[in-house]
Amino acid sequence: MRRRVAILGATGSIGGQALDVISQHAEDFDVVALACGRQTSAAAALAAAYPSAELRIGGDASALAELVSASEPHLVVVATNGLVALPATIAALDGGAAVAIANKETIVAAGELVMAAARRAAEAARSTPLERLRPVDSEHSALWQCLNGEDPARVDQLWLTASGGPFRTWDVERIAAALPPDALNHPTWSMGAKITVDSASLVNKGLEAIEAQRLYGVPMERVKILVHPESVVHALVTYRDGSTIAQLASADMRGPIGYALGYPHRMDRLIPPVDLVARGSLSFAAPDLARFPGLATALAAGRSGVRATSALIAADDIAVGRFLAGECRFGAIPEILEATVGALEAGATPTSVESLLELHAEARAYAAALPIPEALRA
Amino acid sequence: MRRRVAILGATGSIGGQALDVISQHAEDFDVVALACGRQTSAAAALAAAYPSAELRIGGDASALAELVSASEPHLVVVATNGLVALPATIAALDGGAAVAIANKETIVAAGELVMAAARRAAEAARSTPLERLRPVDSEHSALWQCLNGEDPARVDQLWLTASGGPFRTWDVERIAAALPPDALNHPTWSMGAKITVDSASLVNKGLEAIEAQRLYGVPMERVKILVHPESVVHALVTYRDGSTIAQLASADMRGPIGYALGYPHRMDRLIPPVDLVARGSLSFAAPDLARFPGLATALAAGRSGVRATSALIAADDIAVGRFLAGECRFGAIPEILEATVGALEAGATPTSVESLLELHAEARAYAAALPIPEALRA
Repeated sequence: MRRRVAILGATGSIGGQALDVISQHAEDFDVVALACGRQTSAAAALAAAYPSAELRIGGDASALAELVSASEPHLVVVATNGLVALPATIAALDGGAAVAIANKETIVAAGELVMAAARRAAEAARSTPLERLRPVDSEHSALWQCLNGEDPARVDQLWLTASGGPFRTWDVERIAAALPPDALNHPTWSMGAKITVDSASLVNKGLEAIEAQRLYGVPMERVKILVHPESVVHALVTYRDGSTIAQLASADMRGPIGYALGYPHRMDRLIPPVDLVARGSLSFAAPDLARFPGLATALAAGRSGVRATSALIAADDIAVGRFLAGECRFGAIPEILEATVGALEAGATPTSVESLLELHAEARAYAAALPIPEALRA
Repeated sequence: MRRRVAILGATGSIGGQALDVISQHAEDFDVVALACGRQTSAAAALAAAYPSAELRIGGDASALAELVSASEPHLVVVATNGLVALPATIAALDGGAAVAIANKETIVAAGELVMAAARRAAEAARSTPLERLRPVDSEHSALWQCLNGEDPARVDQLWLTASGGPFRTWDVERIAAALPPDALNHPTWSMGAKITVDSASLVNKGLEAIEAQRLYGVPMERVKILVHPESVVHALVTYRDGSTIAQLASADMRGPIGYALGYPHRMDRLIPPVDLVARGSLSFAAPDLARFPGLATALAAGRSGVRATSALIAADDIAVGRFLAGECRFGAIPEILEATVGALEAGATPTSVESLLELHAEARAYAAALPIPEALRA
């Protein structure tokens, strides 16, 4: 059966690679809806390449939800930034579509709301929440692959690997004083600026650990980070019997994108296989929370709950923006995170999309208004 | 439901560890039958510890088959040496019991006969051949775990790891001249003398590759060996999409034994989990077929077929025996293998247990009579 696919964030890196994978397996998919943020030449190219797809440019949250509902997809790829696709994600799940989710904010800030929708959808489809809400992030796809055919109740620990980023071997003072050109020099993955900075601070791994906790229902204390500079092993699952299952792959997002699009079928030749003989060796270390305090704050936010993780992700977006704009040095990022989470984590847990978006806006405003200490000004 | 378990080879290393695992999960199992080769103090201890189990000492092939049929087990652990348990294995599968198989000869020499019985049993039980014939060898258990929940048709390559043995860094002349004390010094696993010598020659890996080909239905060309001195990763499966799934575990046979006993349930705390941070790094290399010609002969036998693999395993038993008896140096082992396989591989494929046992006896006699060249005498 050909599957009807909608892609939100179609001109971004993940959206573009999803379209690549689909075009290599054109017999299996029909692209029925595309959305992107701005009228660009890439958007014009999409309109020309997919004349039969509904194309929405610059739509807001309700426009995206309407696009998804109207186009009746089997599968929605959510590759937008921020929370703009949150209502569309829930509408897709409630409408019977599977969602391939490449958007951290949706799970980190709105975890319980989205996971509840995934559980409802799994029940209606007699499927599993993970089959309905399919992770696209390489580490979460790797965890999903390590959990294949296994009983989730027998999981002991989830391990996410981190390359360690460009500051892996730097001392704490040098990291604090770093400026954007230092942080944007990532050793293994080629990504957008925001996520590259998050990789340098290891906050990215903290957000992924929070996502893993939500997606796989494993308490934060049993979600672990492993520094692995070669980025060959993406994740591991240790089971209660003491065995560990790992997923290894080239650092190429077409692997996890294709896995989410094709699940449970593994498509042919999405990515070149890892050659361990050519690699020679793989190394592993514990993350240094003293040198990477943003990771410590993110893990603590995961243990604290939804208010803390919502505040964290909103604050991080602002903090990285201020760093990239030349307002502050790298060391200001973890300070902004810690202050914002500390200020907002106590209070009522948001239980609706509206209350969640309010909390998010409040955290953004708080993080944006925080003064930068003189020592950390750029 | 409590499962009735029979153990053939109950006083050996695997049999004893299976009884350990069972005693740690005594609420799940009843030991209904035990067999061992000789009347020893260990056999007397078994009789005292399991008074309600039928105990057979020194039984021949038909006695073991009768024991299995009479005791009506749900699960039979086959941990004997040689081919003595071949009729019992087939009787167990035909009688509706699952078999946890720790015996290489059964799969390598009698692969097609046993696999056909496993397929018949799977059909009758509406199960899979691997659920009926459960591998206990650490590498094959690891492959089985990597294949969990996956479509076997999407497998590209199976990888078995090898520690490399005590001669991993030795040059070819030094390996050829080695004597038993050199070969019995295995770096990671503590095993019997025969299997330790097979690990030193890497013939063990060749036999495992042949087993993997049979158990998993993957052609020999796509079963690969990876030298991995730390013995942390036991096997890997590369899928056609380019992703690889690996299994990691401490070098402790209670892991694979417990996995086979409990499948699909992973029991609690069979073995200590791997600590990759403490390990620091893992290394990988291709095996050197010029320095380990026995591995090359074994892989070629796997490509050739059942006659070659039956001759190989019979010849290896004799060759290692002659080496351990002080008749020859290590370099004679691969020469005996190559000569015996070369002499016997052409001819009619054995299709019955009887014709197989005849071929096996013929190969043993051929290998035992081969003269040792003067340069390789001990």
